[in-house]
Amino acid sequence: VISREDALRLDEDDPLAAYRERFVISDPAIIYMNGNSLGRMPVAAAERVREVTSLEWGSRLAGSWPHWIELPSRIGDLIGVDILGARPGEVVVSDSTSVNLYKLASAALQLTAPRSVILTEAANFPSDLYVLDGVARAAGARVRRLAGDPPDAGSLAATLGADVALVCFSHVNYRSAGLADLAAMTTLARDAGALTLWDLSHSAGVVPVELEACGVDLAVGCTYKYLSGGPGSPAFLYARRGLQDRLLSPISGWFGHRDQFGFSSEFEPADGVGRFMVGTPPIVSLAAVECGARLVADAGIAAIRAKSVAITELMIGLFDQWLAPLGFALASPRDPARRGSHLAFRHPAAWPISRTLVERCGVVVDFREPDVVRFGIGPLYTRFVDAWDAMDRTRTAVADGMHLEFAAERSGVT
Amino acid sequence: VISREDALRLDEDDPLAAYRERFVISDPAIIYMNGNSLGRMPVAAAERVREVTSLEWGSRLAGSWPHWIELPSRIGDLIGVDILGARPGEVVVSDSTSVNLYKLASAALQLTAPRSVILTEAANFPSDLYVLDGVARAAGARVRRLAGDPPDAGSLAATLGADVALVCFSHVNYRSAGLADLAAMTTLARDAGALTLWDLSHSAGVVPVELEACGVDLAVGCTYKYLSGGPGSPAFLYARRGLQDRLLSPISGWFGHRDQFGFSSEFEPADGVGRFMVGTPPIVSLAAVECGARLVADAGIAAIRAKSVAITELMIGLFDQWLAPLGFALASPRDPARRGSHLAFRHPAAWPISRTLVERCGVVVDFREPDVVRFGIGPLYTRFVDAWDAMDRTRTAVADGMHLEFAAERSGVT
Repeated sequence: VISREDALRLDEDDPLAAYRERFVISDPAIIYMNGNSLGRMPVAAAERVREVTSLEWGSRLAGSWPHWIELPSRIGDLIGVDILGARPGEVVVSDSTSVNLYKLASAALQLTAPRSVILTEAANFPSDLYVLDGVARAAGARVRRLAGDPPDAGSLAATLGADVALVCFSHVNYRSAGLADLAAMTTLARDAGALTLWDLSHSAGVVPVELEACGVDLAVGCTYKYLSGGPGSPAFLYARRGLQDRLLSPISGWFGHRDQFGFSSEFEPADGVGRFMVGTPPIVSLAAVECGARLVADAGIAAIRAKSVAITELMIGLFDQWLAPLGFALASPRDPARRGSHLAFRHPAAWPISRTLVERCGVVVDFREPDVVRFGIGPLYTRFVDAWDAMDRTRTAVADGMHLEFAAERSGVT
Repeated sequence: VISREDALRLDEDDPLAAYRERFVISDPAIIYMNGNSLGRMPVAAAERVREVTSLEWGSRLAGSWPHWIELPSRIGDLIGVDILGARPGEVVVSDSTSVNLYKLASAALQLTAPRSVILTEAANFPSDLYVLDGVARAAGARVRRLAGDPPDAGSLAATLGADVALVCFSHVNYRSAGLADLAAMTTLARDAGALTLWDLSHSAGVVPVELEACGVDLAVGCTYKYLSGGPGSPAFLYARRGLQDRLLSPISGWFGHRDQFGFSSEFEPADGVGRFMVGTPPIVSLAAVECGARLVADAGIAAIRAKSVAITELMIGLFDQWLAPLGFALASPRDPARRGSHLAFRHPAAWPISRTLVERCGVVVDFREPDVVRFGIGPLYTRFVDAWDAMDRTRTAVADGMHLEFAAERSGVT
């Protein structure tokens, strides 16, 4: 089994090691394994937010709009071109992931009528399921949820019929980290005449995505995980250029108008992906997105992915040695080619274990119903030794029964 | 005509004078008359944003969610109860005004079917018209646009039939500042069996609004004008309590779920107004909203309204003496009871006059197509002497032909 010294050596050889300094690490004793939920704050983001408030809002006030108005497409291009393999003008930052999914799925159904089936996966992120159900109901369409976490290309092929309008999966599953075969499934869907809409929330910034090369039609994703955009930072949406001018957002707002400040009383959609914008974007939150996205673009997805895989492989090695004997089961794929950048460990006592790790062991993990502890790796700031220590502290906590003490104290209190 | 000394005396007697210090005024030589577009930054907002980034995001990271998750309803109640005359649990801060309008108008149409007409006003804010047209089209309904700026109760009464599902007006017109008779029109609509949906963007924080007392069903509004929430800060939405549980948002997202972190695969709307939330709110922008709203709530709408009326009356007095002879026409109502907190002056050379005032005279105004210069009064930081000086500089600029010079230089350049 790998030693702590080995882990330290891996950090010494890590070509991305210097990126850790670009993030705020206020308490080095805390191991933050929650970058898949909320990425750490880039030092530059705190600076940028200070500038947007003090200088741009505080001093220049509405005079900053000529600059602000460019942010959704400028940051969209940074994410799209440098991180997601899209072309310029195909990505814009706007609204939340769920609102973006709603807009794109509605537009896709309208375009593909009379096809009337949305294919998705039962294991999808719940909010995606809720949105798609709502879109389908309003359009008189139906949702079919495939089994599998994620479903494989074979099961997609078996389900794709002439009635399928839209295929909508998550690239990386929020719970298991299962990585779908985006290229193969996109090709299958296209060959069957269906549009594809991928949720990249758990892959953007950490797993290679080649939107153009794969011929993806539509995508959405969040910017506050591996892109370190800040809590609830606005999401992105992508529409393939060849499709843009045939898609109409169900929510026609002034930011999506061809001539926003002409104040015409009739809506005319803008050319391009900007037609999917709606209202005034939250500038302070939006501006910060650029900083984290810039770090990801600079570091490069290939290097980020390599480190992510190396760390999760290290952790799975320790898992087998240390955690499996303590009653844990691995709920993430063993094959790194089928896995995103977090790990799900199943345990009957997952809830008290999670809380013990967070509150008593300085290991910030996440609990997911009913029995999963999630460890997320943000490769730009998570070190190999952090991963080693997190596994070591988990082993010790559970072996020593700290989570049982924790649960007993809690039940005594409540 | 009132003298500059008179204006200074009014400032001395102003019970709200001290609030000016609660805002960042980086260059006192600039007169900011654009608070109707983007309110000045509260000193506390810069502080709060620093806290949200450095401490809450930077240090506590995802551990801040138990606090963040409360912000939409806590700030919603602050705005709803202390500023808009709503009851607790009737207002939530979420998304943009246009997205909120979409959600509420769609839900209202669904509830009132088979009624199928949305009544609005031709002079409404363009984005509202765009959204309503889109909602109507998707629902197989129609939009009727009333004339009048704003339409009066009489013309509403004449149009209200048994087919009208929803009456949707702006409380204060974005261009003219015309103030609709919210109480009378709401009563008329209710008596005709229609729901009401008011856009309070240009009245929230500066004009008294009594949502409960007037029996308003639904409302939306922006927080970045008189509430000084910051550029593009998230908007609010209001739904009358008795109506909430019969309304369904067309966009069902996890933040609107009854048990958000249960991760059920089926959507069940939350009780109350929270069901209209969708995705993760942009926390940095959201948190700042509380600061400006708190200042408005502390100062009190009655005092704010009194000062707003006094300043616009002073400006109209000067307008008649100084600007009318220079070719200006007043495009806002003369009766303060029919007017919001900005003034629209019409002039054939409105565009070069606006730019001259902003770029050469230190008076930040707004131009609105085709011929309007807008002067907005934020009563918490705009002094009587600012209003006097702004009028004086406008008179001087136009009398001296500065705008003609400006236009000539510009046309020489381009």
